[in-house]
Amino acid sequence: MNLSTRNRISGTVSRLDIGEVMASVTVRLRGGQEMTAAVTRESVEELGLAEGSPVQVLVKSTEVALATGSVDGLSIRNRLPGTVTAVSPGAVMTSVKVAVPGATLTAVVTGDAVTDLGITVGSPVTALVKATEVSLASMR
Amino acid sequence: MNLSTRNRISGTVSRLDIGEVMASVTVRLRGGQEMTAAVTRESVEELGLAEGSPVQVLVKSTEVALATGSVDGLSIRNRLPGTVTAVSPGAVMTSVKVAVPGATLTAVVTGDAVTDLGITVGSPVTALVKATEVSLASMR
Amino acid sequence: MNLSTRNRISGTVSRLDIGEVMASVTVRLRGGQEMTAAVTRESVEELGLAEGSPVQVLVKSTEVALATGSVDGLSIRNRLPGTVTAVSPGAVMTSVKVAVPGATLTAVVTGDAVTDLGITVGSPVTALVKATEVSLASMR
Repeated sequence: MNLSTRNRISGTVSRLDIGEVMASVTVRLRGGQEMTAAVTRESVEELGLAEGSPVQVLVKSTEVALATGSVDGLSIRNRLPGTVTAVSPGAVMTSVKVAVPGATLTAVVTGDAVTDLGITVGSPVTALVKATEVSLASMR
Repeated sequence: MNLSTRNRISGTVSRLDIGEVMASVTVRLRGGQEMTAAVTRESVEELGLAEGSPVQVLVKSTEVALATGSVDGLSIRNRLPGTVTAVSPGAVMTSVKVAVPGATLTAVVTGDAVTDLGITVGSPVTALVKATEVSLASMR
Repeated sequence: MNLSTRNRISGTVSRLDIGEVMASVTVRLRGGQEMTAAVTRESVEELGLAEGSPVQVLVKSTEVALATGSVDGLSIRNRLPGTVTAVSPGAVMTSVKVAVPGATLTAVVTGDAVTDLGITVGSPVTALVKATEVSLASMR
């Protein structure tokens, strides 16, 4: 199976909080960062996830936002600092590649946002992903 | 690879519109409905998608909304009419299973919405998914 | 902090419902409307949110859908009526600006949707955002 999902980062489950419907799964990435996925309890059970399980974190590129500067005070759980390596503008949306430790992410944001933030190759940015936008793949 | 993504429906690519950054991929599902995915142009190229390609449509359950009435006049491209087969309430979010032709979908919506709309087992509903929330897996 | 996220509206937390994993945060916007964010419980705790907390509601433009007719019977919690002020078409996706009381929103939807709904400058529309797509920034 090949996925259209641009962002796939390998890691290991480091924490699991299980609610009635939703579960929060924290994953330590191979680059040392942590990401949190809010997925259904059902999916955690079906994938047999536990602390130590190897997983891939999956994030669609349209779900990645970018910040320049400090990112304090945000509800957004996942914040991966990195450096812009490519900017490919379209008429409405622009694709931005961000090198983070251990991975390269793709963010698709509006061209307006890229202009407003002055994002170019070499810009330091933080990639932001809401926990509800993160899916997981188990590697069994 | 096993996915946390609850909604996976098999189909065949019926139309492709390729832009500079984004591409719109229309998929005819095995149940006869059509769904549209707005994915990156890059992913279409990498998956080698063309008309006739067998794919799976992937949608995270938190990305599925529900409608109990008419869905005319909505920009949301993907509308799958079906019947509620299960309602599992949590403290904040509620999981709703919807049988549509050829598949069963999972929608995670707020408990408030389920109460307001009076959704129970047997309710006719339309599952709604924005095209930007749809991912694709190629089955090669 | 500068965010690529196009939609940022100031408001005040008016209600909090905390579950085991997720929390529902209702925010009264300065324009008088209310919006609901489904975020992780952890983020509510980390931001120290309480009734009365000043926050910014953040929504990525790809997460905003548009409706031209009635929005009754939708599970989508956030519905902001307004008027289209600009339409910028790309090859696949189109950016639509919507003036709502107290803010201007950006929605990125498929060009097909804009054509089907006949959306032009001056069209009355309702901007729709699923609660799971709303992030929060604390203004402390």
